[in-house]
Formats: sequence, C-alpha cells, structure tokens
Amino acid sequence: MSTLLESYVAGAWFRALDEGEPVLDAVTGEEAARVSSHGLDYAALVDHARDVGGPAVRRLTFHERAGLLKQLATHLGRFKDEFYALSARTGATRRDSAVDIDGGIGTVFSYASRAKRELPHDTLVLDGDVETLGRGGTFVGQHVYTSRPGVAVQINAFNFPVWGMLEKLAPAFLAGLPSIVKPASQTGYLTEAVVRRIVESGILPEGSLQLVSGSPGTLLDQLGEQDHVAFTGSAHTASILRNHPAVAERGVRLGVEADSLNCSILGLDVTVDDPEFDLYVKGIVTEMTVKAGQKCTAIRRVLVPEAMAEPVIEAISARLATTSVGAPDAEGVRMGALASLEQRAEVRKAVEALRASADLMYGDPERVEPIGADAEGGAFMQPVLLRAHPGAAEPHDVEPFGPVSTVITYADTAEAVALAARGRGSLVASVVTHDPAIAREVVLGLAPWHGRVLVLDRDDAGESTGHGSPLPVLVHGGPGRAGGGEELGGMRGVLALMQRTAVQASPDMLTAVAGRWTPGARRSESTVHPFRKSLADLAIGDTITSAPRTVSQADIAHFAEFTGDTFYAHTDPEAAAKNPLFGGIVAHGYLVVSLAAGLFVDPDPGPVLANFGVDRLRFLTPVKADDTIAVTLTVKQITPRTSADYGEVRWDAVVTNADGDPVATYDVLTLVAKTWPQQTQGVDA
Amino acid sequence: MSTLLESYVAGAWFRALDEGEPVLDAVTGEEAARVSSHGLDYAALVDHARDVGGPAVRRLTFHERAGLLKQLATHLGRFKDEFYALSARTGATRRDSAVDIDGGIGTVFSYASRAKRELPHDTLVLDGDVETLGRGGTFVGQHVYTSRPGVAVQINAFNFPVWGMLEKLAPAFLAGLPSIVKPASQTGYLTEAVVRRIVESGILPEGSLQLVSGSPGTLLDQLGEQDHVAFTGSAHTASILRNHPAVAERGVRLGVEADSLNCSILGLDVTVDDPEFDLYVKGIVTEMTVKAGQKCTAIRRVLVPEAMAEPVIEAISARLATTSVGAPDAEGVRMGALASLEQRAEVRKAVEALRASADLMYGDPERVEPIGADAEGGAFMQPVLLRAHPGAAEPHDVEPFGPVSTVITYADTAEAVALAARGRGSLVASVVTHDPAIAREVVLGLAPWHGRVLVLDRDDAGESTGHGSPLPVLVHGGPGRAGGGEELGGMRGVLALMQRTAVQASPDMLTAVAGRWTPGARRSESTVHPFRKSLADLAIGDTITSAPRTVSQADIAHFAEFTGDTFYAHTDPEAAAKNPLFGGIVAHGYLVVSLAAGLFVDPDPGPVLANFGVDRLRFLTPVKADDTIAVTLTVKQITPRTSADYGEVRWDAVVTNADGDPVATYDVLTLVAKTWPQQTQGVDA
Repeated sequence: MSTLLESYVAGAWFRALDEGEPVLDAVTGEEAARVSSHGLDYAALVDHARDVGGPAVRRLTFHERAGLLKQLATHLGRFKDEFYALSARTGATRRDSAVDIDGGIGTVFSYASRAKRELPHDTLVLDGDVETLGRGGTFVGQHVYTSRPGVAVQINAFNFPVWGMLEKLAPAFLAGLPSIVKPASQTGYLTEAVVRRIVESGILPEGSLQLVSGSPGTLLDQLGEQDHVAFTGSAHTASILRNHPAVAERGVRLGVEADSLNCSILGLDVTVDDPEFDLYVKGIVTEMTVKAGQKCTAIRRVLVPEAMAEPVIEAISARLATTSVGAPDAEGVRMGALASLEQRAEVRKAVEALRASADLMYGDPERVEPIGADAEGGAFMQPVLLRAHPGAAEPHDVEPFGPVSTVITYADTAEAVALAARGRGSLVASVVTHDPAIAREVVLGLAPWHGRVLVLDRDDAGESTGHGSPLPVLVHGGPGRAGGGEELGGMRGVLALMQRTAVQASPDMLTAVAGRWTPGARRSESTVHPFRKSLADLAIGDTITSAPRTVSQADIAHFAEFTGDTFYAHTDPEAAAKNPLFGGIVAHGYLVVSLAAGLFVDPDPGPVLANFGVDRLRFLTPVKADDTIAVTLTVKQITPRTSADYGEVRWDAVVTNADGDPVATYDVLTLVAKTWPQQTQGVDA
Repeated sequence: MSTLLESYVAGAWFRALDEGEPVLDAVTGEEAARVSSHGLDYAALVDHARDVGGPAVRRLTFHERAGLLKQLATHLGRFKDEFYALSARTGATRRDSAVDIDGGIGTVFSYASRAKRELPHDTLVLDGDVETLGRGGTFVGQHVYTSRPGVAVQINAFNFPVWGMLEKLAPAFLAGLPSIVKPASQTGYLTEAVVRRIVESGILPEGSLQLVSGSPGTLLDQLGEQDHVAFTGSAHTASILRNHPAVAERGVRLGVEADSLNCSILGLDVTVDDPEFDLYVKGIVTEMTVKAGQKCTAIRRVLVPEAMAEPVIEAISARLATTSVGAPDAEGVRMGALASLEQRAEVRKAVEALRASADLMYGDPERVEPIGADAEGGAFMQPVLLRAHPGAAEPHDVEPFGPVSTVITYADTAEAVALAARGRGSLVASVVTHDPAIAREVVLGLAPWHGRVLVLDRDDAGESTGHGSPLPVLVHGGPGRAGGGEELGGMRGVLALMQRTAVQASPDMLTAVAGRWTPGARRSESTVHPFRKSLADLAIGDTITSAPRTVSQADIAHFAEFTGDTFYAHTDPEAAAKNPLFGGIVAHGYLVVSLAAGLFVDPDPGPVLANFGVDRLRFLTPVKADDTIAVTLTVKQITPRTSADYGEVRWDAVVTNADGDPVATYDVLTLVAKTWPQQTQGVDA
C-alpha cells in the first residue's frame, strides 16, 4: 500500500485514523498515495492558527514578513527536482511543471520584493491622503489597513498543487493571516511534499501554515467574522460555500475563482499573412495543450471573423497534429495526461454536450495512442477542436476542463464583444490585433466581463507571457461565473485580506496612531538641525524652520539667464502682466524650491546622504519680486531599510511668503544613515 | 383615504393595481400614505435601466456626470421645506431631518466636487502604475476600472429616506450604473417626494433613476453578473439576500450594511474633571437621542473604566432628564418619535432581552408623556440607559434600534478592545482620550472590527462631526455582523462599483486603450514646439527632445553659491568623495531640473499658461561636472477643465546623460489654454 498523506496541525504531523482513499498516478493508473483526514481536530487546527500562528506573524513588520518569504522561496528552489518528480505523476510534462513549481516559487519571490518596496516597515498601511474634515484643520481623517486577527483558509484546485498554494499563501502571510491549506486530494501529495519542506525549514513562524490532507470536515464551522476563505474550484462548490452559514450569516469573507469560459478574439484586421495570425494560432494551441488544457485560464472559445474560420481551423489542426500525447517523461511528448480518469470522463461528457451545437474539426475524444504509456491506465486524451453552429448556446455554457476549444465566428467587433460576454464573466480574454482602434474597442468592451485582458501583436509577442499566465503583479479573478474574486495584483492582493478603517482624530492623535506626521500636528524644533540626526535620533515631527530670504527681481532675471528658462512670465513684464494666473513677473517654481533647499540644507557631512527625490510638488501662490520666503521642513515618515545601513526619511516641506501663505508644498525624500558617525559599508543604493 | 405612493418605472409613474397598505404618521398615528407595487413589471424596470439608463450615463465622462450631480444637489436644495415637512411625519425633529435631508444633499455635492478633482475627464479610470512585464519594455500591464453594463439596486432602511437614497445614488451614477431605488415602505413617502423632484427636473438622464414604492417583488430574479445590490437593513434580511440564487449562483454583487452594536470607549486616562469627560457624556446622549436612536451608527455600548461607571451613569442620566420627548414641531422638544408603533414594540422587546443581564439606570421603556402629542397614537419612547452585569452577553448581541444604550465596565485597555470585539464587527467605534498611547492601542485594536474609528478629545471636539455621522469622504460599513460592506469613502465608493481589469499590451496599444501615454510608446516630434499647441491641437505622445547642455564645475559651484545650497556633495571634493552614493562632486538635483526646464521651455507667450507642479521626481543617476544632459518631454495626459478655458496637461519628463542613462524622471504639470490665441476670461485658478 502506498503512503498515507498526513496533515500538519497544531505544530505536528497528523496521521488519519483510517487507511484513507487511494489517489492514482495519472500516467500509470497505479496508486500514488492514500489520503484521509479522519480524526483530525478541526477546532484545534483553527485555534492554533488564531492563537499561535496569527499573533506570531502580526508581531513582524511587513518588511520582516517579506524577508521570510524571500528565504522561503530560496529554500524551496533547492527541492525542485523532488517536486518535478512528483509533478510528473500528476500527468504534467516538464513545461507544465515549470508553470506550477517555478511559477509558484516565482510568485513568492515577487511578493517578497514588492512588499519591501511598496509596504511600510510597520504593521499598518496608510491608504490615500489625509482628509481635512473641518475648516480649522483640527479634525482630520485617514484610512488605514490593519491585519485581521483571523485565519485564511485556502481551498485549492487539483491543477496547480504548488502555485495554487503559494499564490494564496504569500499575500496572506504578508497580510498577517495564518494559512490553513486544503489542497485537492487528487494531487495533494505534491502539496504535502512542499509543505513538508516548508515546515522542516523552520522559516515561517509556527502556526502560520497548516495543512489538511483529505476532507475539509467541519473546518468552515469553526470560522467567524475575521476569517477568510479563498476557494478555487467549481461554480457548484462555490455556491455551496456561499450558502454556508459561516459565509451567509457569520461574516466570513469568501473569495472565489470558479468556472471560466475564456475566449481569444482574432481581430478583424488580421489576415493570414500577418504575423498576428501565427501568434493567434500558436496561442490557441498552447492554451489547449499546456497542462492538457486543465487551466482555469485556458482558451475555451476561439472567436474569429467569419472569413477566417477555415484558415484558423486548418492552422490549429496542423499544429495539433504535431503535438504528441503521452507519458510526460517520454521522448518527444508535448502533452501529458489529465489528472485522473474521472477527469477525462468529465471532459468527454463536456465534449458530448458541446457537440449538440458544434462539429468536431480535430481530434477524437474517445481514442488516444499515448507515447510511452498505456492508453487505458493513464488519463490521456487527444486535443479536440470544435466549430460551433451559428447561434450555438453550449460553447458559452459548457466548460470542458481539458484540451478542448470551440471555434465561434463573428461578423463585426461589436458582435465579438457580445459573444465574449455570453461567457457571463471570465478570468481572462485576449485579442490579437495590430490595430489600435480595434484594440481599444475590444478591450473596453471586454473589460467589465474580465479580470485580465491581453492584447497580443507583433510588438509585445516576444516578451508576452501569454493568454493563460496569471502574473503576481496583475489581478487574477473574474466577475460573474468566474466567481467574482480577485487575487494577486501585487499589494492589491495583500490589502484585500486586511481591514480598511477610516480613522478620525486631531492631527496630533492621528500622528500617534498612524506613525506618520500629519499636517497640523505638533512640530518639534530643537537647537540641533535635524539633518545632523541619524535615524537612531530622528523622530517624527522633528522640524527646522528656516530663516527668511527675499527673492529679488535680479534673482529671477539671473536664474532665467543662468538656466535658460526665459519663459515670458519670468522675463517680460508686459507679457507677464497679461498672463491670467500671474498678472506680472513671477519667480520660477524651480527657483523657489532651489532657494528653499538653500535655506534648509546643512552643508557639512552628516547622516543625510542624499536627496533622492521630491513628491507632489505644487506651486500654490506666485512669488513676485521682493517677496520674502521661508521654508519649514518636518520629518513625516521614517523607513529604515532592512538590508542597508541607512533608511528613507520623507520630509514635509512648506514654503511660505511673508503673509504666511503657502507658496509651494512638497515632500522631500532623503537617505539618512542609521547611525552617525558611521562606516558606510553595505550600501545597496 | 390618503395618497397611494407611486413607483417610477420605464419613464412613467406607475400606480399599483390595488389600494395598497397604509403607512401611519409616526407622531399622530394617522394614515400618512398607502403603498403598493402590485402589478409592477419588474422585468421592464430592469430592462429600462439596462437598455436606456445605463447607456445614457456611460456616454458621459466622469466630469460630465459630476456636473449633473452638482446641478441635482442645487435643485434639491430648493425643496428642503417640502422635505422637512414630510420628514416631521416620520417622527424626525428638525435636527434629525437635517441629518437626513441636508446630509443627503451634501453628500451629492461632495461627490460632484471630488469626482471633478479625482476622476479623469474620461470613462475609464487608471489604477496604479504601469507594470513593466518584460525586460525589454515591449510588454506592459496597467489596471483599469471600467463601468459595468449593469444596474444598481438600492434597498434602503426606513431611518434615512433621503440620505439613504442619495449616498448610494451619487457613487452609482458616477460609476456609470443606473439606480433602482427601493425605499422602506414605512418612510417611503419622503423618498417618493424627492424622486418626484429629481424626475421633474430632467437633470439625470432618463432611466438612470427608477423607484419602487412597495415590495421588491421579483426584482432580484431579474439580476445577473453585471448587477449590484446595495442593502441597508437587518442581518436577517441580509442573510436571505446572500442565499438568493442571484447572489449565490449568478454573481450579483451584494453590499450589506446591517446590524451594528457600536461602542464608545472612555479612555483610562480621563477623569471627571477633564474636558473629555463632558465630551464623552455629551456624545453618548447625542447618539441616544438623535433620530430617537434609530441610527445604524448609534452608540449601543458605553464602555467605561470600572471606577467611572457611576459618574458616567449619573452624568448621562442628568442630561437625559433634560431631553424632552414629543411632537417634532412642539416647543422645547429634543427627541421625536420612533418611526412606527411596530418599531417601538421591537425596541421594548430588545430592552426586555437586555434586562436579562443588565439593570435599568434611567428611563422607563413602557411609559412616556410626549409633549404636544398623544402618548398612544404616536411611537414615542423615553430614552433608556442600562448597566450590564459583569460578563453579560446580551449587550453584545441584542441591538435595540432606538434610544437605548448599555453601560459596560472594563478593567484595562486590552479588555476594552476585547469587549468592543464582542460586537462581532461594527460600523463605528469611538474612543474619548487625550493620551496618544491609549489612542494608538485602542485604534489599532478596534480597527480590524470597524469601518470607522473616531478619536475624540479637546483638540478636535470643536470641529468633530461626532460618532454617528458617516462622511462622504470616509468609508462607511463594517465587517462581520455589520454586513461586511463598504460604501462612500470618496472615490473608493465609486470604484467599488466598477470592474477592475488588468490590461496587458505593448506600450503603443496600452496608450491607445488607456488614453494616457505609456513609457516606451511612440513619440511624435514635429517642427512645432508642443508648448505652442493649445489643447485643441495637442495630442497624447507629442514630444520635444531638447538640445544637450553640459553641466560644468562652475555651474555647480555657482548654483551652490546663488541658492545657498552648499551641501558638501556639491562643494567639497574631498568630503563628496567619501559619500557612499556619489563618490565625488555632483550637481544639485534642483540644478538638473532647473536646467532641464531651461532646455524645454518655449519663452514667448503661448497656450502654456503655467507650470503648477511636479510629481514623482526621482534622481536616478548622479550628474558630475562636465556631464552633458538633455531632456525629453512628452504629453502623457490631457484633462480639459469643464468650467475654465484651459485644462491640465501632464508631461512625462526624462533627463538623460550622454550615455543615455536616465538622470531624473518626473511628471511636469501645466495649465494649457483650450485654444490659442484666446481671450482668457473665465479662469477659475
């Protein structure tokens, strides 16, 4: 008997109390593993996540969480061979395995590096600007994202046992949520192997990742208001989850990624001689055959202009004819097996349903001669191409989760968009066109129905990741039938798992709560210039108010001559008088900020290493000749870098005139040493 | 018999086929109106929104939609007296009516002005930065929000017949969705009156607002993937909606704002002598009595340190004793009637349930002597204050939707946070404290359980809008029991009703789709300097590439001397050599951008009126003495202002050195005349 897969619960590997159900090798039909969660204590599982894992993650800042994810991705990269070997048993070729395994590890790397760049070195995220809620400025608002003290339950599909887990785990971990992973039993042995490597590494805090091999049992019954369930699978199961009291009554958040009848549209502009024609055909065949078409993002509907149906069918068929099906490790094999015989039976049933309104153009769903494998033991199937009858309904409704696509013809672009919408919401659509007007019409028409739209042409084909690949930095999910969920999308996928709250307070209190200086809050001036303070000494609210400086007519004229910026508003009194905004000679905005820097800078070597940028500079009041300006610079935000001996300091800068009116407002961005004096080794600029 | 309220369906007022059910005046108990939707054609209603109203709204840009909302708010302001008179019949005092009527109109004004400032003069919204998806820069991604071709069904509660409609209508209209409003029958006569004024004004496009007076009938059965239901009401009804096939199976988006046991926490630092003590007591009494406590945001739980329970109860009781209950128009009345006798019976039942674990401290739920009204005809009730027994469960579970609050004591701040969380998710919490450390601990503890948290103290009290007031610019909604929805929050509330889609394309195609120039896309250079082009002539991608300029050692030295920015990296070769980022003298960043302006500016009077700002300036490569720089300026985005004879042009600026490395990148923001030559009247700078 094969191995009984275990669950990882409350800090220990749990072995079910029965012998479990067999899971078969997709290629040979032999038993690959057994699986059961019989006897698992679901309450203990959730309590452990809530009481141990969650607090351990939330004690870390986003940058610290990102650091652990980077370690984790590096660690997993060492065991790829092991994972690839198991992956082959699921029917996956090396190309298929790369999508799952390298794709999963790459997603963790992406989240690690993005989080360091885009999230603060803190445990809350500020969202949007400070809102002034009263004229006097004593009452302000700020939206913040905080971590929920809950758990993230992740119910994954069989087709991506590695990527499916990691693409949900990484954002959840960053969001401060402990994960409970429930893989599909069919390919759960690969997920279990990856979790074993994660657990033995000790990189993630105990309790932040647990695994259920087998049935989810009463898991959902344990969940409440602060918990999240992310589900990838069928619309039918999604509907059951939506009706579960945890979701319908107890406020559990549910994210769904379900059925999706994705389409690819060949633009009306494309002829058989255009490079876009080949790109289109190649894209269709790739999506039909990668993972043997078992991808939520695969192209099910091939939408082509009426006149192009025959050449497209011919070209796709020709390519499919060279796509050898067989054992993933056999020489020359381009497409492996489906995940199981049950899965193949489902796909054959779907093809039968489709044939009610479509004709078979290529392939025989019932017959296959796999290379290097037994035709009946393994779950092999030929790719199948159909052509829909005019007005056919089934191709928009039946999702064959395998190597099957249907060609559907359209008359004009508006009809192509309307046909795409008949999928009732999909994960992704693509349009292959080299005509910008067609691209705009199709994309804007498809967008409300899709989470992702790819425009493919000769210009981006070389670097395009293709129709079927979700990317960590782009949202993944679709409306309607596709489930209405949204995952990934860089930090969007993290914030979606956190709670957004509007905080209303005085500027002082908001500064204390948010850890960022709020305009109107107390400033702290001392005899020490803040540029003489290292990160260790600098505090939010530290301020320097400069001496005044008068901007003379000669300064303006000289600056114009020196820089070459002789715009009439700075040089020609008569013309400047006619300018509707100025009504006379004004100082250059760049002169104002240059003089302001002269007013606040501290010349000697010190902890401030560089000014690396300026954000949101606005010129609010014109500065005329003989106006006197002064600048106030206040520490707004301090972000130490984890891997360098300095950090970023954001300063609030306000230049005012003699009347106290703001002349210019902006943020000055500087790099400041963590200590001073210091050795400046280890700089990672 | 009183008036039978009508529905507004498919461009006409519809009168039900039966006599309807009576709705009683809350003050007198007389029949105020009758209501029925018997015979209403719900399919026609939804079709009209989908086929007529939606397309009409989506044809307009966001700025045009905002313009109509501003007109609408102005128009409704003229009929306030009429609305106030009807509002009094719901039991509302003038103060209560102001919250509903002025609050509703104010929300529309807020959305109109924010949308003009924060949304583009276009029909799609770009979300976040362009993502570079390939090293060569030929494949990029951009998230966009587009309008869904669906309808927004808004099911409102009885307590805010005006605000409840308008706070949902304004964001939906901006999002491009036609609204179908279904008010609670109890106060629907006021909503119907407002809709009549809206319809007769002709300001909103036909089909963009319809009204169902009476039962929602089969309305939900008509809805599908692109539709949205926003519901404010009970958790029980919310659960029914969540289980409806439209939501559970057909992908209708559902936003819920339901039960909420909001709390207000008195900080451990506050003594009876602090101004915060009075602010706290006043806040509690206000929330108990405004709208007779019939607000989703009212304070149900009064969390105070153990030692403060008695003084707080005493002070609240003293204030309540001066709160006269009676007919809204009677002299001296501070609190009106509940909405109906049924509502009062519900509240009395809730008080009974609470008394299982709480004692009555003030008020008699069964007895009232209203001023200027009959005690039994009108739905009057005294305010009721309870004190919970230690460990009581009911005060965290039973929501008395009336003038009822329960005092609960806590030992330390952590316990206060834990008690607040026992509400299982609320719309809003407040903490009254003058201690920043307590504020931070409480706010961060409460945030995951709340949509809004108010910190009240002596500093913001003068301008604070109070615990109970949702504001258009801040999110409104709460997790868990409060429904998990999120409304308002400025443009967040608009985008939440749109579809986010990741678009992948070449830079050229993305520019065509998004209407904003994408780095890497084609630039268009001509002999005409783009600064000589008015908005009428300027096109996305118009570019000027400047002549080169060498930055000499003398330039750097002179700039340092002239501006006073004598930072050692610009002036002291030896010290500069030790700087870890520069390793020698570098030009000031401000010098680089000043010279760049000199390189691209066109000196003579022309359509470019002013440079009003700079965004996201980053200094990427140090400029050393004798380096040569040049600048490329490209039109990125063009935003005509609807109410001025100029608009905003955002330019992509890249300064490069002789090696072609980017030295500085930023956006330059200018105001450009719509035509040139022009008369410059009507400037709204």
